[in-house]
Amino acid sequence: MINILFAAKPASWADYKTPLRRALDDTGLAYTLSPETSDPASIDYIIYAPNGPVTDLAPFIRAKAVLGLWAGVERITDNKTLKIPLTRMVDHGLTEGMVEWVTGHTLRHHLGMDRHILGQDGEWRKYVPPLARDRSVAVLGLGELGGACAQALAALNFNVLGWSRRKKSIKGVTCYHGNEGLAQTISQAEILILLLPLTSETENLLNEHRLAQMPKGAFIINPGRGPLIDDDALLKALDTGHISHATLDVFRIEPLPKTHAYWTHPSVTVTPHIASETRPDSSARVIAENIRRGEAGEPLQHVVDRNAGY
Amino acid sequence: MINILFAAKPASWADYKTPLRRALDDTGLAYTLSPETSDPASIDYIIYAPNGPVTDLAPFIRAKAVLGLWAGVERITDNKTLKIPLTRMVDHGLTEGMVEWVTGHTLRHHLGMDRHILGQDGEWRKYVPPLARDRSVAVLGLGELGGACAQALAALNFNVLGWSRRKKSIKGVTCYHGNEGLAQTISQAEILILLLPLTSETENLLNEHRLAQMPKGAFIINPGRGPLIDDDALLKALDTGHISHATLDVFRIEPLPKTHAYWTHPSVTVTPHIASETRPDSSARVIAENIRRGEAGEPLQHVVDRNAGY
Repeated sequence: MINILFAAKPASWADYKTPLRRALDDTGLAYTLSPETSDPASIDYIIYAPNGPVTDLAPFIRAKAVLGLWAGVERITDNKTLKIPLTRMVDHGLTEGMVEWVTGHTLRHHLGMDRHILGQDGEWRKYVPPLARDRSVAVLGLGELGGACAQALAALNFNVLGWSRRKKSIKGVTCYHGNEGLAQTISQAEILILLLPLTSETENLLNEHRLAQMPKGAFIINPGRGPLIDDDALLKALDTGHISHATLDVFRIEPLPKTHAYWTHPSVTVTPHIASETRPDSSARVIAENIRRGEAGEPLQHVVDRNAGY
Repeated sequence: MINILFAAKPASWADYKTPLRRALDDTGLAYTLSPETSDPASIDYIIYAPNGPVTDLAPFIRAKAVLGLWAGVERITDNKTLKIPLTRMVDHGLTEGMVEWVTGHTLRHHLGMDRHILGQDGEWRKYVPPLARDRSVAVLGLGELGGACAQALAALNFNVLGWSRRKKSIKGVTCYHGNEGLAQTISQAEILILLLPLTSETENLLNEHRLAQMPKGAFIINPGRGPLIDDDALLKALDTGHISHATLDVFRIEPLPKTHAYWTHPSVTVTPHIASETRPDSSARVIAENIRRGEAGEPLQHVVDRNAGY
């Protein structure tokens, strides 16, 4: 019998209970699954989200792994009580949702849709955008999500550049890496998409200096993490028109406070952290597969490298 | 020496002159190219657009073909003076532009973007759309443009249905045809894209009866031809909310008159016939290739079947 603790936000238990039981039943393992425990020492696996009830992992002396429900893990990697493997969510549905959101907003800016959506005033605003093949789009971060977005945009004929810390290679994408590569990538990006993990190295990556390196009139799309951007620097660059528009899905504080300048800036679109949502059915299968692997002595999937921070 | 008449709108001569000369030079043929002629009997090929100066083709007794610059040919197919082959424009750039516009607006409706673009008021409107794989999108018309759009949407995981008059088969797309197939297609279409040619059979195809067959809350995207839709029936269906929104790029009269109800209806987005624009460079190459073929005795590309009307 293995004991599994569901340590995500209590309100999400209703969404996950049935999908998790169904996926665990399919593994054939004997298990208990509960959103609380009076005996941490009895728990074998912890299903975890940063907004859940568990912060001190020390009492979980028998636990074999912490299985994260989120793609971002910056709120647990520096938890000193975590001594066992941590996995993050790499979910089919999560990736697909992100690709759809990123592709949609990239095409929105590419086509100049807003002038029509916001301008239904009887004026025939004929504007023909360049073809995607003549538009350079850059994706910063080529992990599971960034890589999939870069490929989808390349399939639509965009001239896609990608940047990652370590050297990568993706078919149809011009890949850069390292510090020098970052300047080269940013300086060509007519549309810039941020899909980097949040680490001490990426915090405020898009600062005044790097915004100035972007082509005049560029667009920014941030479905990654709020602190990747220096907010004051971005607002200044939007005011001068050096950056045409920013579509932001993530923020330092969420929900974004009603008084934040992003809400009222005419060149900003705020979306409420919806670019990619974990879907219970598909993520429950990812969790159950890792428990099956753990019990079979097979390597876990999507284990976090805590030194790298993702 | 072959003589080529440029019989499109005189104002477009400035855009086409250089690209056409460049493409014709590449064929190695000896030619003259001019936007006017005092001797129709000397002309070998007529580069044609419906808004150009030529309506009577009878005097062009030596001409071998009429080479259309537009994808739509309904304004010439019933010209009784046309006795020689007519080709229509099937241009790489035209298809790519259409795929980009259709994919962008399909994702816009799929993701519910407008609630954010129009609703920057400080309210955190959390709405997570279904994945594309759980969204049914139908494309009516599976010619060069419709087929390419259906494939691009299928590549983004949408559940794509297609309908055409004649039976077709496209990988990843569930294809229907004929009258019975039309009802089946329309009744499943959460997002309906019109890319049919305009013929006597397709005029007012989307009438009151067929709008009623669509699922409640469906979206309509029309980058095809204005008269495919019964405008009064659509406005009624939008008023009742049976249709959520229509994004219309083409109209019976263009520019759409400032007083037309489409401009002010909150559930309509008017775009100014920009979904697909002929680009001079790529279409000049298509024209030159057909002249090369004509002179070499090879079959012309994209010849219009005037009985079918496209």
